[in-house]
Amino acid sequence: MTLELKDYIATIPDYPEKGVIFRDISPLMADGTAYRQATNEIVQYAREKNVEMIVGPEARGFIVGCPVAYQLGIGFAPARKKGKLPNETISATYNLEYGTAELQLQKLAIKPGQRVLVTDDLLATGGTISATIEMVERLGGIVVGTAFIIELTELKGREKIKDYDMLSLIKY
Amino acid sequence: MTLELKDYIATIPDYPEKGVIFRDISPLMADGTAYRQATNEIVQYAREKNVEMIVGPEARGFIVGCPVAYQLGIGFAPARKKGKLPNETISATYNLEYGTAELQLQKLAIKPGQRVLVTDDLLATGGTISATIEMVERLGGIVVGTAFIIELTELKGREKIKDYDMLSLIKY
Repeated sequence: MTLELKDYIATIPDYPEKGVIFRDISPLMADGTAYRQATNEIVQYAREKNVEMIVGPEARGFIVGCPVAYQLGIGFAPARKKGKLPNETISATYNLEYGTAELQLQKLAIKPGQRVLVTDDLLATGGTISATIEMVERLGGIVVGTAFIIELTELKGREKIKDYDMLSLIKY
Repeated sequence: MTLELKDYIATIPDYPEKGVIFRDISPLMADGTAYRQATNEIVQYAREKNVEMIVGPEARGFIVGCPVAYQLGIGFAPARKKGKLPNETISATYNLEYGTAELQLQKLAIKPGQRVLVTDDLLATGGTISATIEMVERLGGIVVGTAFIIELTELKGREKIKDYDMLSLIKY
């Protein structure tokens, strides 16, 4: 049986600030069957792309990408907020839907030529994912795909990353 | 072949501040075989405990717990820093090895009577994990085990959570 994943997304108006409609994947993650189904769809996509490494931005990108990496028997590298990663890092700044931020990736995270899938829970304006892609490429990785549980189509994040293949499981 | 997981931990002196020796699981996560082996050891432990739900604190607790939840076909609930979770939450404050912080958990995350495994990358003084356990129990969950990649034995976190069963894969 295939679940309708949209049934497992909570919609919270005016969060984190007035005028923003927040789509929360918590109910999906909390349901073992829904979480497994969503993960398996991304695993299938990653297999088709011969992905060798997964990178996800802090923190929900970990929730999406880590089980995919595990299932494929490949590695996962976290893109973290400034100051969270030890050792040598590179940085990229970006604009959020609400505010600005800086992400970092360890220099050792990506091997040149590695085929990388970038994952996050949600594609909004595409700022977070663009910064993550930029860092992967600066380290010599090849971004062969991007995968999201949710895509907010009105915010046109897809256009921002139009040079990359993309999978989104749920559209609003 | 079984890997020596300790070979995949990076040791960074004076991070995030002077006098602290930081143990970094990044190389373990970046190696698909090591990440899979570590996860499988926790999966096996969770199976023995008949775990029904996994809870992990932000953000490295996600990296440890999410693939375990996926493999078992059960849910994962994130314990997040203050202000990160929408909907109704409960909070717990705690002292870190370096600083203080507040964690939150969604009220809907745990069903009363649910058998819960709490995961994190590293057990230091036990502050983070104690706060997470406290919230799970306040929501009616039964903490049947705790699992860590790394245990810093000198910091005696094990004593702080001595009422709970515990698995640690690597000891320093």
